[in-house]
Amino acid sequence: MAQTQILAARQGEVTPEMEFVAGREDLPVETILEEVAAGRMVIPANKVHLQGVLEPMAIGIAAKCKINANIGNSAVTSNEGEELEKLHTAVHFGADTVMDLSTGKDIDSIRRKIIDASPVPIGTVPIYQMLEELGGNIEDMRPQHFMDMIEHQAKQGVDYMTVHCGVKLEHLHLSVNRVTGIVSRGGSLIAKWMMSHNKQNPLYDSFDDLCDIMKQYDVTWSLGDGMRPGSIADASDAAQFAELDVLGELTKRGQDRGTQVMVEGPGHIPMDQIQMNIEKQIEVCNGAPFYVLGPLVTDIAPGYDHMTSSIGAAMAGWYGAAMLCYVTPKEHLGLPNREDVKQGVIAYKISAHAADVARGRKGAQDRDDALSRARFAFDWNEQFRLSLDPETAKAYHDETLPQDTFKSAHFCSMCGPKYCSMKITEDIRKMAAEKQLVELPETP
Amino acid sequence: MAQTQILAARQGEVTPEMEFVAGREDLPVETILEEVAAGRMVIPANKVHLQGVLEPMAIGIAAKCKINANIGNSAVTSNEGEELEKLHTAVHFGADTVMDLSTGKDIDSIRRKIIDASPVPIGTVPIYQMLEELGGNIEDMRPQHFMDMIEHQAKQGVDYMTVHCGVKLEHLHLSVNRVTGIVSRGGSLIAKWMMSHNKQNPLYDSFDDLCDIMKQYDVTWSLGDGMRPGSIADASDAAQFAELDVLGELTKRGQDRGTQVMVEGPGHIPMDQIQMNIEKQIEVCNGAPFYVLGPLVTDIAPGYDHMTSSIGAAMAGWYGAAMLCYVTPKEHLGLPNREDVKQGVIAYKISAHAADVARGRKGAQDRDDALSRARFAFDWNEQFRLSLDPETAKAYHDETLPQDTFKSAHFCSMCGPKYCSMKITEDIRKMAAEKQLVELPETP
Repeated sequence: MAQTQILAARQGEVTPEMEFVAGREDLPVETILEEVAAGRMVIPANKVHLQGVLEPMAIGIAAKCKINANIGNSAVTSNEGEELEKLHTAVHFGADTVMDLSTGKDIDSIRRKIIDASPVPIGTVPIYQMLEELGGNIEDMRPQHFMDMIEHQAKQGVDYMTVHCGVKLEHLHLSVNRVTGIVSRGGSLIAKWMMSHNKQNPLYDSFDDLCDIMKQYDVTWSLGDGMRPGSIADASDAAQFAELDVLGELTKRGQDRGTQVMVEGPGHIPMDQIQMNIEKQIEVCNGAPFYVLGPLVTDIAPGYDHMTSSIGAAMAGWYGAAMLCYVTPKEHLGLPNREDVKQGVIAYKISAHAADVARGRKGAQDRDDALSRARFAFDWNEQFRLSLDPETAKAYHDETLPQDTFKSAHFCSMCGPKYCSMKITEDIRKMAAEKQLVELPETP
Repeated sequence: MAQTQILAARQGEVTPEMEFVAGREDLPVETILEEVAAGRMVIPANKVHLQGVLEPMAIGIAAKCKINANIGNSAVTSNEGEELEKLHTAVHFGADTVMDLSTGKDIDSIRRKIIDASPVPIGTVPIYQMLEELGGNIEDMRPQHFMDMIEHQAKQGVDYMTVHCGVKLEHLHLSVNRVTGIVSRGGSLIAKWMMSHNKQNPLYDSFDDLCDIMKQYDVTWSLGDGMRPGSIADASDAAQFAELDVLGELTKRGQDRGTQVMVEGPGHIPMDQIQMNIEKQIEVCNGAPFYVLGPLVTDIAPGYDHMTSSIGAAMAGWYGAAMLCYVTPKEHLGLPNREDVKQGVIAYKISAHAADVARGRKGAQDRDDALSRARFAFDWNEQFRLSLDPETAKAYHDETLPQDTFKSAHFCSMCGPKYCSMKITEDIRKMAAEKQLVELPETP
């Protein structure tokens, strides 16, 4: 095949990966071809990972809304075993991609094991490992360091990479009066480099060279939003949108050079600005898949930011974001553990699915309808089976109705037998059948 | 004063309750007067409860978005002590009103204790106790039974009551092909009565008489939505909107008879239909406060319906719903316990606050901004203090940074010291101050 999915699509060549995602999405392969060629869909599938256990995934507005789970250790906590457990948990509960954001010990070995084990695309932020290898001083970075790291990780099989090419020297002053400054780790590192050297972002300057490396392995760009708002106060400001315009330019350049491109977005946005943000990205980046982090719709609930952000994520997905990067309950407080990963993934499966339902994506509502029918029929086991977390649903149900005799009951402990509206509706329908209710006059 | 808040307002009389809520809402008392007179705001404050510990609460689009927490036992589980604990928990975490939906033992005594203990308005669904006293057969109900129960509970000090006056005989057939039938407990009971007697809803027929009782104590109507959809499949159907038209008619009649009226709404609605639902209610009910249950935006996550519904609730609040009735993780599965009440209240505080921020309500964003400033300043204690659940936020933070020396650290375990973007931004700002970054040319 051609070197990358987008180049193949532009030549009208259907790759095995396009065939695979067409089946997954229940879409005609022609649609996949057309969307990939237009840059509105990416299939992040590094050629090396494709030789392993990767099952290709489509990310784009024509496909179902996707979610990403961030895992990875930090200098403070976690290790290889825990990270592999988090990967397993994330995939088990339905993460469509996983990013390994390790910044602690054994970065290289953790990543290798994650790629080997992962059926979903793996993303990274290569600047982290590069900084580790530089000894921790970002000021020491030269473009070659960064290109070597991109190549190293591409060779390992990383499917997509977040690179903060869009943070430009001339826009830094726009962040000076922000309440929370620059909240992207990679973005703040690059900003520090630029401040220190008083030079343009070397990743911006090296963009074409980076494209050549990415193309060789078909690594998908995830154009990082280094200037994303980190608080409601900073949402939709000049710094954010100045960078978005740069990302729009880079999207086109990346696609023109034969690489697949998606674009990252905020962050923290009040509900009334989400639609505008999504529509603006789609316009500026010519429909390239938008991959948003949340957004959180309020800042006042640390400990519950999987929830503050799943509200914004659901809306973003509905308005057209292609992938939602989860946030866990530990956001702003500490490194997520296995349970946090589970909570984050479930919150975001809810958001992505609600977005699919609201957009009327083919087949999306079938599961809702099947679960509702099971609910009305008091088929508890079928309800549990169809739910996002059968174990938890069953445990909650059984908590107050533990006796085996109650498990098939036509009620639950919320209302008890006498007040179950669904039981009463059953009675009404029986009466209606006898009385031929549908024949009732409109105004008796 | 006049008999009710709305009658007082229409006469231009400022009641102590209006003064109180004006202070609470940081609104001019003239606004309160105008909104109450127009029926766009209610102050559910039973004269009996006002003699107790009630602190009046304003519910209406001009005021901050409110949340209600349902508590109450069932025939299967819970008791007086547990219900008082739930009341305490709900109020502690910020519930603006509480409904006692007990259907189990000691209904009367539980309600009395709840009213005595509650500083927030208490709502009920009187048909439950009436049915208990009838011995469980709804068919035996005569209008007088219901009126006696309304009067009994009004005398106890109940501030607002859900009555399913809007379910009419001629609309029942519209629910026949629904996936989940009639999911309102009160609605299904009334429907059963009508089916059994083939007569019009006696609560509809007795509406004016009921108004007279409510007016005497200034009990606020919460016009129940007996035909609300119980699944995504049934959302926005003919049954729901036929009832809404009746509720619009009853809203006017209730207001004309001097009673305060709010209107209940769904339930389960996909995201793309929420705005339409809110705008339709506002139009049909002439701006009477809309009190919605959720809505859930998908049916596939039993065990997490506080979350599926907090998405819909946030959007509903943004679009103009006045009060959001919480849903707990146990919804559809069992009776909520104290921890479920806490989870439900916090989910809905997030939704209501996000709605206030998105609507630009005066002062709403101040807390977000204060918390974000504390975050940027690494003032952990201030972050915890400003958060919806300080204890949980602190516990999460301390989990992986337990040592006392770390508690004032300029990082957390998520990123560690080297990758904290806020720490790096601090460095950048110091550099910027030295280099006078704001003087940087636009294109260096």
